[in-house]
Amino acid sequence: MNQELKQQVVDANMALVSSGLVTLTWGNVSGIDRASGLVAIKPSGVDYAELTVDHLVVVNLAGDVVDGDLRPSSDTKTHLELYRNFSEIGAVVHTHSPCATAFSQAGVGLPCLGTTHADHFFGEVPVARALTPEEVVGDYEHATGVSIVERLRELELNPLEMPAILLKHHAPFTWGKTPQYALDNSIALEMCAKMALMTWQLNPDARRIPSHILNKHHERKHGAAAYYGQGK
Amino acid sequence: MNQELKQQVVDANMALVSSGLVTLTWGNVSGIDRASGLVAIKPSGVDYAELTVDHLVVVNLAGDVVDGDLRPSSDTKTHLELYRNFSEIGAVVHTHSPCATAFSQAGVGLPCLGTTHADHFFGEVPVARALTPEEVVGDYEHATGVSIVERLRELELNPLEMPAILLKHHAPFTWGKTPQYALDNSIALEMCAKMALMTWQLNPDARRIPSHILNKHHERKHGAAAYYGQGK
Amino acid sequence: MNQELKQQVVDANMALVSSGLVTLTWGNVSGIDRASGLVAIKPSGVDYAELTVDHLVVVNLAGDVVDGDLRPSSDTKTHLELYRNFSEIGAVVHTHSPCATAFSQAGVGLPCLGTTHADHFFGEVPVARALTPEEVVGDYEHATGVSIVERLRELELNPLEMPAILLKHHAPFTWGKTPQYALDNSIALEMCAKMALMTWQLNPDARRIPSHILNKHHERKHGAAAYYGQGK
Amino acid sequence: MNQELKQQVVDANMALVSSGLVTLTWGNVSGIDRASGLVAIKPSGVDYAELTVDHLVVVNLAGDVVDGDLRPSSDTKTHLELYRNFSEIGAVVHTHSPCATAFSQAGVGLPCLGTTHADHFFGEVPVARALTPEEVVGDYEHATGVSIVERLRELELNPLEMPAILLKHHAPFTWGKTPQYALDNSIALEMCAKMALMTWQLNPDARRIPSHILNKHHERKHGAAAYYGQGK
Repeated sequence: MNQELKQQVVDANMALVSSGLVTLTWGNVSGIDRASGLVAIKPSGVDYAELTVDHLVVVNLAGDVVDGDLRPSSDTKTHLELYRNFSEIGAVVHTHSPCATAFSQAGVGLPCLGTTHADHFFGEVPVARALTPEEVVGDYEHATGVSIVERLRELELNPLEMPAILLKHHAPFTWGKTPQYALDNSIALEMCAKMALMTWQLNPDARRIPSHILNKHHERKHGAAAYYGQGK
Repeated sequence: MNQELKQQVVDANMALVSSGLVTLTWGNVSGIDRASGLVAIKPSGVDYAELTVDHLVVVNLAGDVVDGDLRPSSDTKTHLELYRNFSEIGAVVHTHSPCATAFSQAGVGLPCLGTTHADHFFGEVPVARALTPEEVVGDYEHATGVSIVERLRELELNPLEMPAILLKHHAPFTWGKTPQYALDNSIALEMCAKMALMTWQLNPDARRIPSHILNKHHERKHGAAAYYGQGK
Repeated sequence: MNQELKQQVVDANMALVSSGLVTLTWGNVSGIDRASGLVAIKPSGVDYAELTVDHLVVVNLAGDVVDGDLRPSSDTKTHLELYRNFSEIGAVVHTHSPCATAFSQAGVGLPCLGTTHADHFFGEVPVARALTPEEVVGDYEHATGVSIVERLRELELNPLEMPAILLKHHAPFTWGKTPQYALDNSIALEMCAKMALMTWQLNPDARRIPSHILNKHHERKHGAAAYYGQGK
Repeated sequence: MNQELKQQVVDANMALVSSGLVTLTWGNVSGIDRASGLVAIKPSGVDYAELTVDHLVVVNLAGDVVDGDLRPSSDTKTHLELYRNFSEIGAVVHTHSPCATAFSQAGVGLPCLGTTHADHFFGEVPVARALTPEEVVGDYEHATGVSIVERLRELELNPLEMPAILLKHHAPFTWGKTPQYALDNSIALEMCAKMALMTWQLNPDARRIPSHILNKHHERKHGAAAYYGQGK
């Protein structure tokens, strides 16, 4: 297992706190080493302040613990389902950040109301359906992952262009190429949700921005001829 | 009196500030040593930053001060009524945290709108009735405790499954097995109240989550086969 | 001029920042030494972080600068009008704290919606009328003070029982026996305004609490038989 | 290029973070040395915490990089258009601060609802029109600057009296004589937008303040006989 990646996973877990995204222990970050097929994830219910690389739990894509003394996050099976289906992604973040969670609880998708959103999410962040009683009683966290994959496929969305989902009655997941990108997407999602709430207070009819602006902001940051940032 | 418990009570009082739950001196934490039947509680109107174990006031369940030079919290009789009636609990927290207090002032119960809530409160956090003029002029803080106990019994709620109440015209109380659990419940209550306000802005019709999801989240964290956390 | 009071005025000005009440330089605290009839006030437009006792400007009740090298706060004449008319008070605080300022801008009085409010303000915090073009062009800051005094007298309010006002189109003033009490009233006003906004979102019909609860909380904290705090 | 100005630009960029105006790297500050006609601007996508004078990119008014190893902010052409047309200004700030961005996304101008606003902005902060598909596909950031200049000229506004604009579907820009003034205007704009949202929740009919109050506050701070601050 890549040691640098494990440190990035620890750093991103701790940044959940410094960025104001988590309360108590309501959040977790994992990262996958695609070479070995191993995933490092936060242990369940452990304080972020105490977290070190040694606390991380390493599991394979089948969910077997291959390293670590603690129990992995209770959401581990959701992370694994995303890694198995979205081969482009390298990290997954789950939080209960308040504004994005409000959209999840309300069952309302987060449309692209401005360029802040367009810079991170290529269109409306969708809501995944509520799980059935059978799914909940059965393999709940696995079924959660299945519902995310199902929703992105229904909408024909590329996971790197739409690196976020809102789980009905629950909270958001985001992902990205690295723990830092996945974390940035959680930060951006929370801020876009916060701004959408205020935008609708001012103008209940505000809907998605014109597609030429959405396309432009997506392309200038993520396209082949991107010119945002230092080209790293 | 258990000295470790006294330190936990001091720590939880100070955490009221670091967690953003209190303004000025609007909040207090107590803990009970069931072996001796003694309760350690914050002194009234003392700054949290200055608080040490020596400042705590120790009272028995009848309300007599048995140790400490300061006057106990003005809310002491409310805490004692909860300890006398809810033998399962070991600590009580009172705050005027803004979002939960808004629900109290509005007289609106806080329904379970998502899994964040389900992880801490098994259903709607109820509102206790306003006190009568006779109760207020009489033994006000005692009557406050009576109204809390009365409401949980009316609703046939187990105090460890519903470790919170909203006092009409006033503010919330929470409780738990230890000062840390009682504090966590105050933190969770405030965040659930904040998220409910935003959820209803987005969807005024959002009501409680399906019971199979409520049951699942309660069981995975608090049930006999709980698998959240490290089994501590 | 009382040196201890000057330090209290500096401390309270700096606490405006740490308590989150001011942005940029939008706020000021003064204190009066009733023995000498001298008022120490923040200089205009000076950063709080740099403020020391030597920066304070000392003026007499007629508004003449008797000590200090800087220009006093542009709001000085408002403070002086309050000191001349409310002989019970020892300090005045002015902020543009956002929630209380929203009530000022909306021209909506802040009713007592709960015990948090009742502990500090004995009834609805009133709105002072907008000033006329003649008053604004003339001695604007003096006229502001006149409008505050006028409003409290119209409503027959005791300045220590109602230590706050909302200026129409402007922002709040608070006062108290000492700089600390006046500051606490600004902190309490902002929080009560914040909670009122959320209370009305939940229940637009929420109006003032029953008078027996208002009276009880006022008496237990401020009455002859008060039992909140340590009797200091 | 003026070295003191470069340090001011660095300081103002870092103050974007400490003042809570930016999330991730969503903001930038530039300053112009009118003697040399050179502009120092933040490099694109670089963390504020790491920023030093040596990272700044220096460009001339035609947009050619004359000093610096990094790529300039992707918004550079917008800044330059403002410097070319508003000869009175010395610095430009762009943020996606949440409340001001909500006004931009909603396409709602920010009217002067109180003296806080009047102290900084002489009337309603206007919204610049959305760009056309041709402008967006073409020279997008240049066209953004053109739309700002166009809107101020349409409304016959003096850039130092109205040092802010809301870009439709995007976010605000502010400016001023120095980086510090331009930054203060971004801070003031965000707070005025926050207070306007709450003012309208309380009173949906609240509209601009009487012109005699607007004029008074503008004059006492910015007029020939200004008496706010220390006359610096």
